[in-house]
Amino acid sequence: MWAFVNGEFVPEEKASLLIGDLAIQRGYGVFDFFKVLDFVPVFLNEHIDRFYFSAEEMRLKVAYSKPELRKIIFELLDRNNVRETGVRLTLTGGYSPDGYQLSNPNLIISLRSFTPPPKNELAKAIKLITYEHQRQLPHVKTIDYLMAIWLQPIVRQFGADDILYHQNGIATECPRSNFFIVTSNNKIITPAKNILKGIIRNKLIDAAISKYPVEERELSTEEIKTAKEAFITSTTKNILPVYQIDECILPGENKVITQLYQLIVQLQFKQTQKV
Amino acid sequence: MWAFVNGEFVPEEKASLLIGDLAIQRGYGVFDFFKVLDFVPVFLNEHIDRFYFSAEEMRLKVAYSKPELRKIIFELLDRNNVRETGVRLTLTGGYSPDGYQLSNPNLIISLRSFTPPPKNELAKAIKLITYEHQRQLPHVKTIDYLMAIWLQPIVRQFGADDILYHQNGIATECPRSNFFIVTSNNKIITPAKNILKGIIRNKLIDAAISKYPVEERELSTEEIKTAKEAFITSTTKNILPVYQIDECILPGENKVITQLYQLIVQLQFKQTQKV
Repeated sequence: MWAFVNGEFVPEEKASLLIGDLAIQRGYGVFDFFKVLDFVPVFLNEHIDRFYFSAEEMRLKVAYSKPELRKIIFELLDRNNVRETGVRLTLTGGYSPDGYQLSNPNLIISLRSFTPPPKNELAKAIKLITYEHQRQLPHVKTIDYLMAIWLQPIVRQFGADDILYHQNGIATECPRSNFFIVTSNNKIITPAKNILKGIIRNKLIDAAISKYPVEERELSTEEIKTAKEAFITSTTKNILPVYQIDECILPGENKVITQLYQLIVQLQFKQTQKV
Repeated sequence: MWAFVNGEFVPEEKASLLIGDLAIQRGYGVFDFFKVLDFVPVFLNEHIDRFYFSAEEMRLKVAYSKPELRKIIFELLDRNNVRETGVRLTLTGGYSPDGYQLSNPNLIISLRSFTPPPKNELAKAIKLITYEHQRQLPHVKTIDYLMAIWLQPIVRQFGADDILYHQNGIATECPRSNFFIVTSNNKIITPAKNILKGIIRNKLIDAAISKYPVEERELSTEEIKTAKEAFITSTTKNILPVYQIDECILPGENKVITQLYQLIVQLQFKQTQKV
């Protein structure tokens, strides 16, 4: 497998950064991740736009223009020639002279194998546990997953699959996905603030709005317990239904979720037919 | 200059980690940093103890026992043969198969040149600005300096030298140092909770306690404004007096600080004579 590091295509098993890099020294960097289905990158423009936005918010400059980066991505995909894969763009704080000041960012583009989400049916529902934590600079896709990884044994201990963060009882997001509920009168609600706005989240809201009322607003952990359905969204998973949050078991009918899943799959199908 | 990476001594300009490392991918790692004065590592045992503590808290295993690590450190210092330097121990989440699960940690030991703090006089006083932020897992020396580095332009914009974090008006620490005040009746006060307990901080408290009342307790940003003196402590700086916090200019006599500085310098002088 080939990767791309600072202007060069290199075999992934040799792709490296020197130890002076600010991701290694200080955990400073941003990234983005998109999927390739049937050789076509899905929602590529949206991911590239967000990557540049994250970089700018973190005061990191991408050494390439967006069209140049697109070209590099397509060349990397050509070289690797895989039908289905994940692609990760990473930009770090660079080789800092004093281990603290920002320098010229290091850019990495690498492939990560992943199992595409199922095309025609919902994946198995998951259990979430809530945990009080607010991500730093939540609107930016930074590499900071300290708490998420640190919490993994606790997730397992509770027999759960993932975490739902909240702050003072206001739900925000899962470490790698956005959170939604469907109310008893078929309203779709998702947190508006202190979150990373996922590409699938945004696409889903746009697509759902013609069928259901959608509200982006404050959502308390109390209100969640009254939900008829709940689900998370992400690039790797599309939509995963939630069957339990802490002690609260949801009804589990998931009629609305099943419809939304079809909407998202159709959108992606359109993408792969378009290019 | 030589560095040590996962069992091998390598020239620093070639010392690297593969891009699958969890520090690069997810900002997951811990470190410690100590100084070498006159060829002698200062408070080495304390730093090694804290490094193992940080590793354990982050569920990372150091592949060596403490005596083995000491031996490696001394061999690295011998090879580099520098009278005065900083030494950084870094332990990351390792090469994760899926970019999320912890793996065998990567261990890096590297030297960083630094200017030793002055021996006989206080360094120039600094200005702090307060900023509301609570570090994640504050008792652990993680590599997470996202906010600290991100805030640098704001520090400069206010003509300040560093940040003092607080949460809901309760002062905690600076990004790389601990914070103290001296009250009008010569009491020394430093935050007790939600901080990283610095080695110099702890040594200073132990040394000062025979001369002054010392309190480790909650310290509000309001109380700070009534301080007669204020200072920060760290391995690289020992003690730096503070002349201003936000808009509040302190009296600046710094008599107690000057005494404390002598105490800390003597402690380190004893270390370098001991070995």
